Amino acid sequence: MSWLDTVKWDRDGLVPVIAQEVGSNDVLMFAFMNREALAKTAELGRAVYWSRSRQRLWHKGEESGHVQQVHEIRLDCDEDVVLLKVTQLGHEPGIACHTGRHSCFFRKLDGDTWRNVEPVLKDPAEIYK
Amino acid sequence: MSWLDTVKWDRDGLVPVIAQEVGSNDVLMFAFMNREALAKTAELGRAVYWSRSRQRLWHKGEESGHVQQVHEIRLDCDEDVVLLKVTQLGHEPGIACHTGRHSCFFRKLDGDTWRNVEPVLKDPAEIYK
Repeated sequence: MSWLDTVKWDRDGLVPVIAQEVGSNDVLMFAFMNREALAKTAELGRAVYWSRSRQRLWHKGEESGHVQQVHEIRLDCDEDVVLLKVTQLGHEPGIACHTGRHSCFFRKLDGDTWRNVEPVLKDPAEIYK
Repeated sequence: MSWLDTVKWDRDGLVPVIAQEVGSNDVLMFAFMNREALAKTAELGRAVYWSRSRQRLWHKGEESGHVQQVHEIRLDCDEDVVLLKVTQLGHEPGIACHTGRHSCFFRKLDGDTWRNVEPVLKDPAEIYK
């Protein structure tokens, strides 16, 4: 039995994945993997996700150059969520978000308003050209 | 328009939620919220999830006493994932996992084997009695 069989894949054959930065412990992003993506991630030591919008494997950084080097792969108690410990490469400080921010979690609830509280480190027009 | 309308709820009316510990930045757990759970979380300053297995609101700590005090509520770029910054109450150090561990992400991939790498801080039989 493969370690991939331990993972409880959802009804779409996917597992939710949290990417956390080694060192800062910042939560960078959240995405999904299918079995092939998780196998590739372990094999390459680089994060490979499943793009639900494009319905294909998505090698993180394939367009942006913002590759994620994977140090650890963790699984939760229910075996249905994966946590990656990564170094966010390609820019200093690391940019994980397609908006050019360090982390995708840049909106903070302030009273009854979502406020953007993280700076754009690089113009997305410069990242995706 | 309510801040709750900004959230892109999935086909089941849920949003994935990551709970991260303030200070250590450890990722403690992953769960889901429906609209009512997220509204309650913001109102109470305590994490309230939606239990998919029990199909009801789940006030985190209602049985275990391991309540999560919520300091920040964040939303990601796609507005479909929530990140909570919490203090894990009820035990020192905090226990977020029903297995009695600090974090639910205690299995680490080592070659082709998942290994438990985090200690049990309290016997679950003592937590849920």
